[in-house]
Amino acid sequence: MTQKTVLVTGARGFFGGYVAEHYLAAGWRVVGLGHGNPGCAHEGRMVWHRAHVVLESLERLEIEPDLLVHCAGGGSVGASLRDPFGDHTRTVDSTAAVLEYVRRHCPRTPVVYPSSAAVYGNAAHCPASEGSTVRLRPASPYGAHKLMGEQLCASYGAHFGVSVAVVRFFSIYGEGQRKQLLWDACRKIGQRDDLFGGTGEECRDWLHAEDAARLVAAVSPHASPACPIYNGASGTTTTVRQALTLLYRELAPSRHPRFSLDARDGDPCDQCADIGHTLTTGWTPQIPLEKGVQRFAQWFEAVRDD
Amino acid sequence: MTQKTVLVTGARGFFGGYVAEHYLAAGWRVVGLGHGNPGCAHEGRMVWHRAHVVLESLERLEIEPDLLVHCAGGGSVGASLRDPFGDHTRTVDSTAAVLEYVRRHCPRTPVVYPSSAAVYGNAAHCPASEGSTVRLRPASPYGAHKLMGEQLCASYGAHFGVSVAVVRFFSIYGEGQRKQLLWDACRKIGQRDDLFGGTGEECRDWLHAEDAARLVAAVSPHASPACPIYNGASGTTTTVRQALTLLYRELAPSRHPRFSLDARDGDPCDQCADIGHTLTTGWTPQIPLEKGVQRFAQWFEAVRDD
Repeated sequence: MTQKTVLVTGARGFFGGYVAEHYLAAGWRVVGLGHGNPGCAHEGRMVWHRAHVVLESLERLEIEPDLLVHCAGGGSVGASLRDPFGDHTRTVDSTAAVLEYVRRHCPRTPVVYPSSAAVYGNAAHCPASEGSTVRLRPASPYGAHKLMGEQLCASYGAHFGVSVAVVRFFSIYGEGQRKQLLWDACRKIGQRDDLFGGTGEECRDWLHAEDAARLVAAVSPHASPACPIYNGASGTTTTVRQALTLLYRELAPSRHPRFSLDARDGDPCDQCADIGHTLTTGWTPQIPLEKGVQRFAQWFEAVRDD
Repeated sequence: MTQKTVLVTGARGFFGGYVAEHYLAAGWRVVGLGHGNPGCAHEGRMVWHRAHVVLESLERLEIEPDLLVHCAGGGSVGASLRDPFGDHTRTVDSTAAVLEYVRRHCPRTPVVYPSSAAVYGNAAHCPASEGSTVRLRPASPYGAHKLMGEQLCASYGAHFGVSVAVVRFFSIYGEGQRKQLLWDACRKIGQRDDLFGGTGEECRDWLHAEDAARLVAAVSPHASPACPIYNGASGTTTTVRQALTLLYRELAPSRHPRFSLDARDGDPCDQCADIGHTLTTGWTPQIPLEKGVQRFAQWFEAVRDD
């Protein structure tokens, strides 16, 4: 059997790394393009091209991959508020480049686009459903740009026959993630700072990045010019307080998180996911939050003094 | 009274030229940026900078305009189907650059963004209303990119306080427009070719570019971070057959248009506009289609042998 090739943009970013690792473990040849951390776990096992994700760098690869997973792009609400133009370039322009590359050079290559629940914004019904007729109202530039990326996917599907599947990931977490709630909380706990923003009652749906990478693989056969959309979530809603309580159990069992009650700009109040459409692919999440937080805490303990 | 300054991107394009002309006639200083036809009617009367509409060229202007009208961008469905990546760059990236320029350098400058009824697509109710809760489904890359431009405007309004007003123009026409139905029809009539695509019963709402430029001026005081949206149309629905009949009356009174019944990719079936919100600005259209088509035909006769 011929070895298959997957092109992963942003393969040295947090989530791109998990996607690369998933396909390496499955025996695929992984070609990575982008920037990001050197010295990652799969160093030397993938073909790595360090470059901006623009049309020219994609064309220089001269490959015809069996699958393209476009993980490159802006990665946080906060960064998009500090530098909206940079976030636009990283998210929207890179997606335009990837789709144009496929249209011109490998029109049969299916594309998976990891998007974000940030496209729903605060106006979404709970649970948020992909087929919702509610207008999407992203609450941050990050969310607006991810939505624009989705619209490009739909446009290249409808008008040029490019096959795409979109996954709107909710809160992905996992070892290696040096940002977002769990990372920030680990650091605060280490500094004996137990005060967190918000009320603690905000609802989230956390999904371990290994499960998320498995979901990318599960939706990839469904990529089509109709550009189907899947929620990427566990289907289990957890409050911030509950998640932090799990983390405290690992790192500071005698203490408890407290909450300042102030809201952070651009952060949604509540997010919960309807994963009915996602489950039709046969995928189910395998890593419960208790187990995932335990793994995260152990990893943090190992790297905290890096 | 100090002379006011308006920055018009795409000021040498068809509609940008009308906007420039409107403000020149009103006594403003007009600074233009972009590409397009040299030798236009207002040659020498505006300060012209020939450059791509990117952040660097905007920053080199070193002005703080009283108003910015962003007319640059892709201009047709057909071109966007032939070169979607170029259309994306011209429409989406130029809008990102304009908004970032305002955010960084002149955050009090109001922006008017001429968008397009192409954002409604075929799923729109007739008459299309700006506040519609129907999901927008553009039927072409051109429409998708104009919608993305609107979303950038809304994002820069919501998150950075940039004041914007969006006008979704339906079918703008006028002397100087060397594309679209009337231009194509004039040429066909000259070649004694009376066969047109479609059924002739497609509904459109034509607005003369002078009226459209006046509408830009009428909405500009309403630009705000809430990013209000206005339909740019006459409120009168006309079929393609009716419009062509007016043109034949001018150019070939003894002949009649015929229709092939085939549809063109990306063209909407029917478009008609609810202009209730637009009329709240006090603006009303001044040039009826009969008069506008007459002017167009006279201009065509004058330039046909150029």
